[in-house]
Amino acid sequence: MSPEEFRAAAHEVVDWMADYLRDIRDYPVLANVEPGALIDALPAQGPEHGEPMSSILDDFKKLIVPGVTHWNHPRFFAYFSITASGPGILGEMLASTMNVQHMLWKAGPAATELEQTTLNWLRQWLRLPEEYFGIIHDTASTASMHAILAARELASPETRLSGEHPPLILYESEHAHSSIDKGALALGIGRDNLRHIAADSEFRMIPAKLESAIEADIAAGKKPFCVVATLGTTSVTSADPLLQILAIARRHNLWVHVDAAYGGPAALLEENRALFAGIDQADSLVLNPHKWLFTPVDLSILYTRRPEIMRRSLALEQIPAYLQVAQHDRAMNYSDYSVNLGRRFRSLKLWFVLRYYGRKGIVRVLREHMRLAKLLASWIEADSRFELSAPVPFSLVCFRFKGSDDDNRALYDRINASGKAFVSSTILHGKYVLRLAIGNIATTEEDIRLTWDLIRASV
Amino acid sequence: MSPEEFRAAAHEVVDWMADYLRDIRDYPVLANVEPGALIDALPAQGPEHGEPMSSILDDFKKLIVPGVTHWNHPRFFAYFSITASGPGILGEMLASTMNVQHMLWKAGPAATELEQTTLNWLRQWLRLPEEYFGIIHDTASTASMHAILAARELASPETRLSGEHPPLILYESEHAHSSIDKGALALGIGRDNLRHIAADSEFRMIPAKLESAIEADIAAGKKPFCVVATLGTTSVTSADPLLQILAIARRHNLWVHVDAAYGGPAALLEENRALFAGIDQADSLVLNPHKWLFTPVDLSILYTRRPEIMRRSLALEQIPAYLQVAQHDRAMNYSDYSVNLGRRFRSLKLWFVLRYYGRKGIVRVLREHMRLAKLLASWIEADSRFELSAPVPFSLVCFRFKGSDDDNRALYDRINASGKAFVSSTILHGKYVLRLAIGNIATTEEDIRLTWDLIRASV
Repeated sequence: MSPEEFRAAAHEVVDWMADYLRDIRDYPVLANVEPGALIDALPAQGPEHGEPMSSILDDFKKLIVPGVTHWNHPRFFAYFSITASGPGILGEMLASTMNVQHMLWKAGPAATELEQTTLNWLRQWLRLPEEYFGIIHDTASTASMHAILAARELASPETRLSGEHPPLILYESEHAHSSIDKGALALGIGRDNLRHIAADSEFRMIPAKLESAIEADIAAGKKPFCVVATLGTTSVTSADPLLQILAIARRHNLWVHVDAAYGGPAALLEENRALFAGIDQADSLVLNPHKWLFTPVDLSILYTRRPEIMRRSLALEQIPAYLQVAQHDRAMNYSDYSVNLGRRFRSLKLWFVLRYYGRKGIVRVLREHMRLAKLLASWIEADSRFELSAPVPFSLVCFRFKGSDDDNRALYDRINASGKAFVSSTILHGKYVLRLAIGNIATTEEDIRLTWDLIRASV
Repeated sequence: MSPEEFRAAAHEVVDWMADYLRDIRDYPVLANVEPGALIDALPAQGPEHGEPMSSILDDFKKLIVPGVTHWNHPRFFAYFSITASGPGILGEMLASTMNVQHMLWKAGPAATELEQTTLNWLRQWLRLPEEYFGIIHDTASTASMHAILAARELASPETRLSGEHPPLILYESEHAHSSIDKGALALGIGRDNLRHIAADSEFRMIPAKLESAIEADIAAGKKPFCVVATLGTTSVTSADPLLQILAIARRHNLWVHVDAAYGGPAALLEENRALFAGIDQADSLVLNPHKWLFTPVDLSILYTRRPEIMRRSLALEQIPAYLQVAQHDRAMNYSDYSVNLGRRFRSLKLWFVLRYYGRKGIVRVLREHMRLAKLLASWIEADSRFELSAPVPFSLVCFRFKGSDDDNRALYDRINASGKAFVSSTILHGKYVLRLAIGNIATTEEDIRLTWDLIRASV
């Protein structure tokens, strides 16, 4: 494709993109398609000959868009609501054009140093100590796996050599994200060695249960090595009592990993300081700008105070000849710290977002999302047919119709089939509840009001 | 950012992108900057207040671009040469705007089914059997880690439960990519259990050495579980003798993973059939459209004939409530097959590339790259001051000046300091050699000729 053909097509695509962002409320949030519909609509074999870009773009609009669940819709309230903001998209456009792959500093000096700079800015905004090292991963799942790997390396360095280890025990709340289990399974920790510590009535890990589990494991000859505290659990956005967990972990030499994938950005708000007390003492911490920081997927940040352990956990016997570079104090080779060698230029979009909104602009939006969540919670409490199912510490509201689980499942189906909003569900205290997560930068009070009207009308 | 502000900025950005692609030969390929220069040029703290997009874009041009090593430059010949093609960039623009995260079918029906469709098209072009399941990962490192994990699951299913396993032995050529070692380390295989099998004079794994290593390990009470064959090694693009490796592996019940991250696309060419004989019998196979298939980073494909083992390797005790969905035969939930839960809509750019070029168009470009590599090799052989250091089965040329290693290091420095081309280096048979990898879609014979002139003038 010649640069001029690209220019023409890209201008056309940009107009579609801007129209899409402008008209996004006209799209049904949840795709209304049957499984297999797109597979059946597309040819079973790839094309022998090239096709004009105009035909491909036509098919994109005609075949792909109707099958899209619109994550960038302001009334996408399922899972966690996310945003591809304008500056974030612009950053991705430029990054994909330059196609930088900065496995080594030399392969991408600007990409490497912009990652260091943006993660340093965010570190300060989060009031984390200067020695915290930051690295970008694709997802929190991958980031947490690397944190658990570093914890394994610290507790059992011989594993990297022999592959052997004593039974290493990992602790997490029963509300921890499933990716913690997956990461640990991959690393060879074993499912029997994952302790899901009971939570209190407000879904927070019970420190006394953590401590007794650790002691029981030690008594049984096992080796506790890691505890994962979650600040903003997936089901209910509860925050584990980090300071108490840290105190217990320190007594037993456990690595403390904090999963703040969703909640992390809220640490920028003064009023949330208490909720995040202790994050400056964690061994590692993950937060996702692609969740609640207006950055297109994917971009997850892993901070650690022990980068040397993280690096050692993947240290090869020798660096292959094709990757050898002159060592330089200020030339960071990020791939030393991850399983993946290749790395795309993700910090560019983050830099655009941080600069375009600024700290105060970001804080303003997050605060508004938390206000909207509390406003919705107040409406729910004021309607005798509904009940809140959990506290609302961040921007997620868990609630249910005061009826059977089947009533609530039917409610869920009607809301989502409307195309006007998309909520998800979970199970709390054995009951089926709806989850409404606020987090898209374009979401307004009017969107919340319209959705609440829809919910009440769908009963 | 309002849709109209986005529209204006995006049109401006598109013009920069098209100009960049048009003028890219005017940029120095390798960034000519000192480590730390960008960090020093940027503020130590992030901005309190938001800034206009125009200032951010100005800084992008002024501060970021000079620190970029231009991977999309037609004379980027280092590592492996890659391409962000026009259609690929257009796909990324649309994907980042919609911001789909298709962890479940429901969360992204079109993204899920387009991944199935494009990977099925490519599977047929590669003449792989119908039962091959394909999944997109970020990089080949991650994909290979998942393949080795599945191999571990097959050989030692109890590991997922207890974390315990006998000494599991992995075999790979001494020229296998370092990511195989890293992935295995992460999975708890242990460095002592990685066997780097010697290669022959043309850098291909010696089957007899593989078999004797397996037998020695069995005799020592260890458990061979996986062999990685590379088709297109990183240093020299040698291809391991896959059919012989398969025969040995079958006798000993080893999982065979084929790393064709770079070489894979060349299997589309009839004339390469012999080189790829056996890929249809592998247990898993990785190839990277973001390397030699004109797709912007990142997009790596993992195929396996044993998806159920791959899925089981990460099976949780129970699916968390917030991820539970109705099961449907045709609704694939890709996150069941990977550590990462989140997945961005990567297949869109691949679909654009496959359709825009078509199979024949892709074959034409790959064939031209291989022709250019052989042409350069012939020029090198015709110049008595230089020598080829390895055969040229694909599009990489390894060569050296007939002088000392220091002479060649100096040559490397002069070529790359010129900004006109960027080559990398490796060590072969104990000697420092230059690597010139052809793979960018815009590279012409004139680029190769100009670079060869530059090399000769730099002696």
